[in-house]
Amino acid sequence: MKIIIVGATGTLGKRVAEAFAQKHEIIRVGNTKGDVQADITNEASIKNMFEQIGTFDALISTSGKGPFVPASKMTGEVFKDGLLDKLLGQVNLVLIGQHYINKGGSFTLTSGILAEHPVAAGAALSAINGGLNAFALAAAPELENGIRINVISPNVVEDSPAYFDAFPGEIPVTMEKVVKAYEKSVLGIVTGQVIKVY
Amino acid sequence: MKIIIVGATGTLGKRVAEAFAQKHEIIRVGNTKGDVQADITNEASIKNMFEQIGTFDALISTSGKGPFVPASKMTGEVFKDGLLDKLLGQVNLVLIGQHYINKGGSFTLTSGILAEHPVAAGAALSAINGGLNAFALAAAPELENGIRINVISPNVVEDSPAYFDAFPGEIPVTMEKVVKAYEKSVLGIVTGQVIKVY
Ligand SMILES: NC(=O)c1ccc[n+]([C@@H]2O[C@H](COP(=O)([O-])OP(=O)(O)OC[C@H]3O[C@@H](n4cnc5c(N)ncnc54)[C@H](OP(=O)(O)O)[C@@H]3O)[C@@H](O)[C@H]2O)c1
Ligand SMILES: NC(=O)c1ccc[n+]([C@@H]2O[C@H](COP(=O)([O-])OP(=O)(O)OC[C@H]3O[C@@H](n4cnc5c(N)ncnc54)[C@H](OP(=O)(O)O)[C@@H]3O)[C@@H](O)[C@H]2O)c1
Repeated sequence: MKIIIVGATGTLGKRVAEAFAQKHEIIRVGNTKGDVQADITNEASIKNMFEQIGTFDALISTSGKGPFVPASKMTGEVFKDGLLDKLLGQVNLVLIGQHYINKGGSFTLTSGILAEHPVAAGAALSAINGGLNAFALAAAPELENGIRINVISPNVVEDSPAYFDAFPGEIPVTMEKVVKAYEKSVLGIVTGQVIKVY
Repeated sequence: MKIIIVGATGTLGKRVAEAFAQKHEIIRVGNTKGDVQADITNEASIKNMFEQIGTFDALISTSGKGPFVPASKMTGEVFKDGLLDKLLGQVNLVLIGQHYINKGGSFTLTSGILAEHPVAAGAALSAINGGLNAFALAAAPELENGIRINVISPNVVEDSPAYFDAFPGEIPVTMEKVVKAYEKSVLGIVTGQVIKVY
């Protein structure tokens, strides 16, 4: 399979790329690093990425930023930046990518546990993740040519110790478990699913 | 109670305003009609609305637009307009309104059944509604001074026959049931809840 991984140079993406590289052709996309550079907040940049890469069988996104700001200090501008990055950016990978992907291909996006289990300062990321989860559910039955779509929703991961204190009570999940979730989405048959790793 | 209803001149808002007006002081806000005009897609307009109205005890939003477009034809621009209207617009009523609301007050937003039960052409509204539901869950424990927040998630309502065909298999809910859900949020004690009317 020819698999595009947007965010392949990040904490999650690195490990996901390593695993899929055993048996598949991987195109590593980063913002500043990787085989190809793209900016998911810019539609022209996403189109340009697909033009460079050509048709493909699966796209995994492990990219997308959202703000951590207490609700009392959150502003509309900061909230909006998060919506346009992690939520709309990943949605646009699908909206644009559906015109480049091979028959029977799949999209796999990344949300996170905050959709269901909020933490302090995380309301924007909760909204973003909840939006991504509902988008996959709704887009799945509309995608044509047997294209599938799922979202991986991880807990804080063992490779991100800087985030541990922000997630009190959560047991960081192993990267092995996280990688398996992406395998279930890409190599399995499910669609419209939120695959929770928590 | 002094209750602001943003969207009070619309299908849902009209009936909600009628019910609360029996025992409460209502400020009806519309985009073009109502006692006060505001545009939830414009932060300055929201601030101006709160400055005009002064402190209040509850804000209900029955406003917010999102696009109905098949996934295969959906563009990033159209998707974004929906996010910035129904999702960010209602979030901004809370982010800005938290600095004007009285102690122990409440915010009640409106999402919809598409968060959980998708229909054709509804993926953007599913994402918007899913985002609103998760936002309320996450913002509730962060709001100060006993302020509460809930989201009402209605099925298609009996007063909107133009939408019936877009919701195959759904039994339109009565306006009486919808109004009761807003009463539960405003007059009850719950917070961080998605109150489903379906
Ligand atoms: N880490 C966790 O514990 C955790 C838990 C749950 C969910 N998540 C979610 O998983 C995703 C990845 O998290 P992570 O910790 O792996 O992040 P990360 O280490 O910061 O990596 C981000 C990746 O995305 C790329 N990127 C950044 N901005 C981009 C843009 N505008 N366009 C395209 N690519 C861009 C980066 O490329 P460059 O390296 O070139 O800058 C990098 O490859 C995020 O959505 C995060 O919210 C993470
Ligand atoms: N109708 C349904 O069956 C149904 C079902 C589930 C969920 N919902 C949701 O419930 C909400 C209300 O739906 P509805 O059918 O009652 O809508 P509607 O009849 O179109 O009414 C919309 C209301 O919002 C106001 N408004 C429009 N744009 C605005 C803006 N930019 N800023 C501030 N106010 C604005 C309108 O004011 P003016 O009259 O002055 O223009 C009007 O009062 C929507 O979020 C909708 O998605 C509706």
